[in-house]
Amino acid sequence: MKFATFTASGDTFFGAITDQGAIALNDDFPNHTSLFEVIAAGAFDQLLTAAEGKPVTHTDFAYEMVMPDARRILCVGVNFPDRNAEYKDGSTQPQYMSLFPRFASGFTGHNRPLIRPPENHTLDYEGEVAIVIGKAGRRIAQAEAYDHIAALTLCNEGTIRDWVRHAKFNVTQGKNWDKSGAIGPWLVPFADAAQLDEARIQTHVNGELRQDDTLNRMMFPIRREIEYISTFMTLQPGDVIITGTPTGAGARFDPPKYLVPGDVVEVSVEGIGTLCNTVEDEQP
Amino acid sequence: MKFATFTASGDTFFGAITDQGAIALNDDFPNHTSLFEVIAAGAFDQLLTAAEGKPVTHTDFAYEMVMPDARRILCVGVNFPDRNAEYKDGSTQPQYMSLFPRFASGFTGHNRPLIRPPENHTLDYEGEVAIVIGKAGRRIAQAEAYDHIAALTLCNEGTIRDWVRHAKFNVTQGKNWDKSGAIGPWLVPFADAAQLDEARIQTHVNGELRQDDTLNRMMFPIRREIEYISTFMTLQPGDVIITGTPTGAGARFDPPKYLVPGDVVEVSVEGIGTLCNTVEDEQP
Repeated sequence: MKFATFTASGDTFFGAITDQGAIALNDDFPNHTSLFEVIAAGAFDQLLTAAEGKPVTHTDFAYEMVMPDARRILCVGVNFPDRNAEYKDGSTQPQYMSLFPRFASGFTGHNRPLIRPPENHTLDYEGEVAIVIGKAGRRIAQAEAYDHIAALTLCNEGTIRDWVRHAKFNVTQGKNWDKSGAIGPWLVPFADAAQLDEARIQTHVNGELRQDDTLNRMMFPIRREIEYISTFMTLQPGDVIITGTPTGAGARFDPPKYLVPGDVVEVSVEGIGTLCNTVEDEQP
Repeated sequence: MKFATFTASGDTFFGAITDQGAIALNDDFPNHTSLFEVIAAGAFDQLLTAAEGKPVTHTDFAYEMVMPDARRILCVGVNFPDRNAEYKDGSTQPQYMSLFPRFASGFTGHNRPLIRPPENHTLDYEGEVAIVIGKAGRRIAQAEAYDHIAALTLCNEGTIRDWVRHAKFNVTQGKNWDKSGAIGPWLVPFADAAQLDEARIQTHVNGELRQDDTLNRMMFPIRREIEYISTFMTLQPGDVIITGTPTGAGARFDPPKYLVPGDVVEVSVEGIGTLCNTVEDEQP
């Protein structure tokens, strides 16, 4: 069972996704207006119960960003060994991870276009696994970290590369262009450590393999991410952590292979799915 | 007229603040559960109308963070000339501003303690003016920037200084400790450019003047901040921009003057008010 936000005939729904179609579950959650709100209320498990045995309500629908009203999205930067080496600044593995927030407005949904703005054309892809917190916690030990994850999804952490280096510190302005990235297609319940520990992530652009790595090579494993982040802030249900991208983003090629209109980017992890996005120039 | 979020007898309200006390306005906005939601709906002006002529409902109340459910809070870093010089990296005025998001969870309200965590004791203050967006816009010209501001408030952009430098890029983990900063006491409607253009900001610690500057000395004036940020993201009603702190934070002294339990920090701007916070060690 998978859960998503979707639109049909101009209305927005949240619910379950099956091979036969979507099951809108809004009526089962009269006190919540979104998938995020259900999860933030600690009720992710109730989605599974609610969907049980229900008939498909929509066969013709479009995916939205999986939680368009997500409040806190934290991304982990430079988290695979080859990426750190590529910075060529003589640094060995850093002691602490790099972290930066992204607003939900920076992401679109599955099968929708990433938007290339007129100001700058260095739009780049970064395929990543995202985790959704299901249980609150502060100073969570690594051994308990996975107990706090409700679900998994995929992210194309699309970036306007030139703007990442506008400022001395902080990548904010290269990482928050409206709909420059995507999260989806759906949330997959997290039930087994192997879903992360044995995961392999791949990113294809127009069918060409650009990123291909396994999560067990992360410099800061997801258990450590949860431990570290929860040291300074209480993690809450509905929080999203985007866990880091392997080497092979477009900026790493010489010359760089930035995305252009018409490109098709696919981020895939077996057992989670494939997040597919096209690229379009912003409409004036 | 000023507007705030406050608690009384265990309940949370939003409403107007007068010299005689608070006027809860929740009943006037049955479709909104918070001050943020009212503003996000573009209804800031209706707060003024609703408060008109109403009697005080609470004389005994405590301030909360002014919008505890604020979705997007963006801070401008290193925005006064002396602060840039203090980095001693030979750089002249940078071409672009440094920006970083903070989550609402990192802030408490007026007259409440900033929390010093057990992990690190380099808790520092940064007095700043914060603006609240009232009208959406993308690629806003500087000449129109002020038309998008609904209200002003104050921020103590409290920081765990050592953790700001944990990572190569990004100050995230030093800037997002639970309740390490404060925003408030209230929102003051923005009606006149002089409220910002002629503002002088001061920060006192235990009565000693530590920061004292005028907003017209900002390297990136607030009009430019709105123009630049709205280039990459559509500003929405309820968005908060924390506009930058003058020189004189505790880290700039030799030896540094970090906050310790019992300290009292006051951030003041004439016409907006004084944001006052004590400092406490986190309770185990």
